[in-house]
Amino acid sequence: MNPETAMHGSSTDYGVAIGDIRAAAQRIAPYAHVTPVLTCRTIDQMAGRRLYFKCENFQKIGAFKFRGACNAIMGLSDDAAARGVVTHSSGNHAQAVALAARLRGIPAHIVMPRNSVAVKKRAVLDYGATVYECEPTEESRHEVGQRVERETGATFISPFDDPRIIAGQGTSALELIGQCRESGGLDAVIAPIGGGGLMSGTAMAFAALAPDARILGAEPKGADDAARSLAAGRFIAQTNPQTIADGLRTSTGEYTWPIIRDHVVKIITVSEGEIVRAMRLVWERMKIIIEPSSAVAVAAVIGEEFKSIDGVERVGVIISGGNVDLDHLPW
Amino acid sequence: MNPETAMHGSSTDYGVAIGDIRAAAQRIAPYAHVTPVLTCRTIDQMAGRRLYFKCENFQKIGAFKFRGACNAIMGLSDDAAARGVVTHSSGNHAQAVALAARLRGIPAHIVMPRNSVAVKKRAVLDYGATVYECEPTEESRHEVGQRVERETGATFISPFDDPRIIAGQGTSALELIGQCRESGGLDAVIAPIGGGGLMSGTAMAFAALAPDARILGAEPKGADDAARSLAAGRFIAQTNPQTIADGLRTSTGEYTWPIIRDHVVKIITVSEGEIVRAMRLVWERMKIIIEPSSAVAVAAVIGEEFKSIDGVERVGVIISGGNVDLDHLPW
Repeated sequence: MNPETAMHGSSTDYGVAIGDIRAAAQRIAPYAHVTPVLTCRTIDQMAGRRLYFKCENFQKIGAFKFRGACNAIMGLSDDAAARGVVTHSSGNHAQAVALAARLRGIPAHIVMPRNSVAVKKRAVLDYGATVYECEPTEESRHEVGQRVERETGATFISPFDDPRIIAGQGTSALELIGQCRESGGLDAVIAPIGGGGLMSGTAMAFAALAPDARILGAEPKGADDAARSLAAGRFIAQTNPQTIADGLRTSTGEYTWPIIRDHVVKIITVSEGEIVRAMRLVWERMKIIIEPSSAVAVAAVIGEEFKSIDGVERVGVIISGGNVDLDHLPW
Repeated sequence: MNPETAMHGSSTDYGVAIGDIRAAAQRIAPYAHVTPVLTCRTIDQMAGRRLYFKCENFQKIGAFKFRGACNAIMGLSDDAAARGVVTHSSGNHAQAVALAARLRGIPAHIVMPRNSVAVKKRAVLDYGATVYECEPTEESRHEVGQRVERETGATFISPFDDPRIIAGQGTSALELIGQCRESGGLDAVIAPIGGGGLMSGTAMAFAALAPDARILGAEPKGADDAARSLAAGRFIAQTNPQTIADGLRTSTGEYTWPIIRDHVVKIITVSEGEIVRAMRLVWERMKIIIEPSSAVAVAAVIGEEFKSIDGVERVGVIISGGNVDLDHLPW
């Protein structure tokens, strides 16, 4: 896990190996849920495949993010842990860090834009974290975060671009592979791509344990940096993302992009209309609540582009989370 | 199963014994889902108990109703089955009958008020049933239903007041008892009461297999006929129900009332505000979609009245269904 060896396109050492994912699974086992895998015949018929939905919406804090944050925080030395942790996020990662820190009994410092939704700020405060407001700009976020780091000695917990986070997120795929083994294994897996923590962890687990499975990604057309990067063969940053899938507006990172580049064979992009329809379809037919970012992967597997992929019968679909503002639904 | 012996208050032969529930479980096994039991620590803390949610929202057609309809329809003789089945319902029972009839390969005739929600009519038609419109009155419903019965020779499938239906609905409790046995069994069970099919099936299963468990019911204050009946010790019909819980507006029946009277120790009533808050709580915390009728039981177990019941640590809560109009949510 040497950061120098994982710079853009420079190495095949990705900083994360299957052993790291297995170690993460052990580390988080006392705290995280083993989430269920659900199936739905109606959606199978629409996809023309058998789909296995790995339900991270049932994970602690309602999203896969708890896995990575928990792995990073439980893996800190006692000395480092005692000084606390810091991150910036207005979303699921903030709650994940706050909860994992509380479970470890250490301080969590969360930098949030001052225009964050009140209910999200409330949730983080409820976990006992300290919230620091910043301006809603990248610069302000970093500045406030670094000030907190300096003043407290807290360890920064990245939302995705860190081998400990990637290994943690990969534990969902590790479970999924085990859960589907008895019924015949998976021919493919698909995950949504934002910063790429979930996608790269998923890719490393499948590459090691289900090497014949096709590894696929899903992105909104309005935040398709990973798809464009893959087509170009080089990292392209996301600027001005336009999508309801608020977890997927970020660019990939120095650790996540090389893993995606070398393992993901195809990234399917979907429109905002497809995302909303897929989200509603899952609510209506499966009776589970998924967030727009998760609906991106569902939209991908029921769309036309996916149908053109041959030799894929059994597909794992990572449902990343279920945190939705019920007062502002997109229909 | 002699109807004459089960009239109001006249007998201890309820028409449904545990053997009927076991037979129903076998009969529907090829068609129905064994639904999962979920837990949620946040809601446990609110209730001050350990709650085991039996998720019939994950059942075929999204509600427990499929169990009873499937049991009744699969149990018909070939001759009777060939002439088809008829029922009147604008809700989950209509879809349950339509699907069970399709699975048996026989005609289903569904009488629906002409002001039924279009999406519900569509769902029934999608299952291949024939829809007959009636006026939105009790009289018109019966009249049209009886005309269809006469003209087609179809068998009437009651929404709740029939031993075959009650036995089918009881299979959910049968599963629940088995699913909770390993972790120590249940001290109590609670189910919502509309016509009483689910409640009476649940009661008969628990009375036979978990005789020490307290059997509880839940009703909206705006449709509290069963609570008033239990308090008075005699059947009282529901008139002018006022509740969002559309599955619970009905009076209990000739089979269901005596079972409820003799087995249910307490019926907790909840306000409309409590129902909506409980529904939203489950959506937000458990990430599953439940309908208002199910939220009635959840509201009951987190309310003050329930806290006063002593000696109850582990409570089964029957989540009856998850069919909700996503365009008209109550918040």
